[in-house]
Amino acid sequence: MTELMARRAVLARIRAESPLVHNITNHVVMNWTANVLLAAGASPAMVHAVEEVEDFVAISRALVINIGTLDAGFVAGMEKAAARAGHAGVPWVLDPVGVGATRYRNEVCARLLALKPAVVRANASEVMALAGVEAAQRGVDSLAHSEAAVDAARALSADSGAVVAVTGATDFVVQGDRVVAIPGGHPVSQRVTGTGCAASALVGACLAVAEPFEAAVAALFAMKAAAARASETSTLPGSFAVAFLDALAGEP
Amino acid sequence: MTELMARRAVLARIRAESPLVHNITNHVVMNWTANVLLAAGASPAMVHAVEEVEDFVAISRALVINIGTLDAGFVAGMEKAAARAGHAGVPWVLDPVGVGATRYRNEVCARLLALKPAVVRANASEVMALAGVEAAQRGVDSLAHSEAAVDAARALSADSGAVVAVTGATDFVVQGDRVVAIPGGHPVSQRVTGTGCAASALVGACLAVAEPFEAAVAALFAMKAAAARASETSTLPGSFAVAFLDALAGEP
Amino acid sequence: MTELMARRAVLARIRAESPLVHNITNHVVMNWTANVLLAAGASPAMVHAVEEVEDFVAISRALVINIGTLDAGFVAGMEKAAARAGHAGVPWVLDPVGVGATRYRNEVCARLLALKPAVVRANASEVMALAGVEAAQRGVDSLAHSEAAVDAARALSADSGAVVAVTGATDFVVQGDRVVAIPGGHPVSQRVTGTGCAASALVGACLAVAEPFEAAVAALFAMKAAAARASETSTLPGSFAVAFLDALAGEP
Repeated sequence: MTELMARRAVLARIRAESPLVHNITNHVVMNWTANVLLAAGASPAMVHAVEEVEDFVAISRALVINIGTLDAGFVAGMEKAAARAGHAGVPWVLDPVGVGATRYRNEVCARLLALKPAVVRANASEVMALAGVEAAQRGVDSLAHSEAAVDAARALSADSGAVVAVTGATDFVVQGDRVVAIPGGHPVSQRVTGTGCAASALVGACLAVAEPFEAAVAALFAMKAAAARASETSTLPGSFAVAFLDALAGEP
Repeated sequence: MTELMARRAVLARIRAESPLVHNITNHVVMNWTANVLLAAGASPAMVHAVEEVEDFVAISRALVINIGTLDAGFVAGMEKAAARAGHAGVPWVLDPVGVGATRYRNEVCARLLALKPAVVRANASEVMALAGVEAAQRGVDSLAHSEAAVDAARALSADSGAVVAVTGATDFVVQGDRVVAIPGGHPVSQRVTGTGCAASALVGACLAVAEPFEAAVAALFAMKAAAARASETSTLPGSFAVAFLDALAGEP
Repeated sequence: MTELMARRAVLARIRAESPLVHNITNHVVMNWTANVLLAAGASPAMVHAVEEVEDFVAISRALVINIGTLDAGFVAGMEKAAARAGHAGVPWVLDPVGVGATRYRNEVCARLLALKPAVVRANASEVMALAGVEAAQRGVDSLAHSEAAVDAARALSADSGAVVAVTGATDFVVQGDRVVAIPGGHPVSQRVTGTGCAASALVGACLAVAEPFEAAVAALFAMKAAAARASETSTLPGSFAVAFLDALAGEP
């Protein structure tokens, strides 16, 4: 089986099995990432209350934790869910949105990393911040290129045990000696909010049906392919976002 | 007046009167259901704080309670709003998203049902869970067909006093001996998040201008008609969702 | 430089500098206003937790506070952020969604106004409510025309020291003796949720690169121009909203 076929097989399994993916994610992208997961064929649910996250993650096949609009209530839910996921063998992905921008984000991410995500999906400056490397950052946006974060990704992977997926103009999936580069996509993606968050959500769906490294590669590959196809329809952000969902749902 | 004319008359009244519809709904669909209500001609507001829900529901013509991303703060607002709606004679609709999936959802729904919604709008497995019948469920999605839930809907209606609207490939509105079946729509609706939530919101708008049974039928009929029209434009989820709002706003 | 050129220069600076704009806004519009800010070239972030708003506003170039779905947790974050913005010299805009509808909204707005926003962006009934004038209102929608609120805007501006921007069929930017009227746009805007919230967010982006009066005028002018261009593509709300983002991103 070629690599391309292997990546497509992961996406095909999502469509065939429609795995339940539990998301504790930020307010900005809840609708968007639910629609991305549905377009890809998964069954998303957004559930954050401390009263029920443990019950819910136990019936799910993967968990997505995204700290974008974190607050004490959501963080409590994230920690409970991640801990239970660990005991129940449910793989999870961490999206450390904006880590490095405030001390609060740094502290929360340190606690979440200790709970052993299978994958960390982040932009270059976030990966560098998690690895303790100085990075240029503007709020939740990276000013560094993804290439510049590959060494930091390797260090972060070694420290945390997670596969690290750095997204940018070219995406890199890193663990130990393995590095897969995924070029493609289109720059207009950066003018649609939640493209990175959508990548993390899709990694979550892939984690339900594949091993972490393979899952991250398949998800980022699918994101790049859908963005490239959508950019043939439009390179303006409103219609691009619509075309992106269509492309993801229409992938062969 | 034929049945079709009666249903259209309900929608026409919404456009003529633009009733204020108070929503306490989930984070995933707040933008989407606000846009659905605006497209239909209603005046939506999303207000959940315990400090103001009682004041707000008292100036509203209907209330929508949707537990999708419930937590203790939102549940407190829901209970206060529903209780005040009861005293003020403001009809309300309950959308028990994901009931059956966790004990917390079951407990919250039991308390809300006791506050007497005029309509319960749910998918098959949610109706079956509320009626105490074993149901196949995947997170917030039903694995049962709507037909399979008609008996449970009748039992739930008898117990709660509410009109019960079960949505699916065919929708059913049930109360006592009355059952109206509403076929139509398009399966792509299932790949857009919040289609069911939008149906509940539209039931809320119809409750502002019509009796509960008639309101539920008119709302679900309008949803099916808009979905059918939108599917003529696209059956891919991104562009379908856009076309759905257009169809709802452009309905004659 | 003509007035039109001056307004365009503000928007061009946003695209050139991509200023970080800190938003504490409502759940309904977080995705939409983030996309509006990205389309205009700014770098939005939504951050509300009391644990980090002070750190975050200090690295931002402007702050947007929108009370649409306020609750105690968000209000605490808003007050901390606004106070810190004052000390750090970060200009901010207040969007007092639905003020006048409940006592809670009135109290929160009084506290926020005392923290000295550079601009208040609101609809006619909200401006009238803040100025203590009786106004016709339906939930979060104004039933008064923007013209009717110009005197109230002048009074509110005198009291608060803020530039007051009243939006409606014609927008008015008011401070002291200065009044600029901005006609244009298209009525379909009223059937897309968060058009006013988007105007406030864009005022925030303009505040990062221009003085308050000039910022408000440039933002509302850009909104009207984008709405007019989008209405050439569609006057139905789903496709209009998509075309609006495209128009904002494609502005010369």
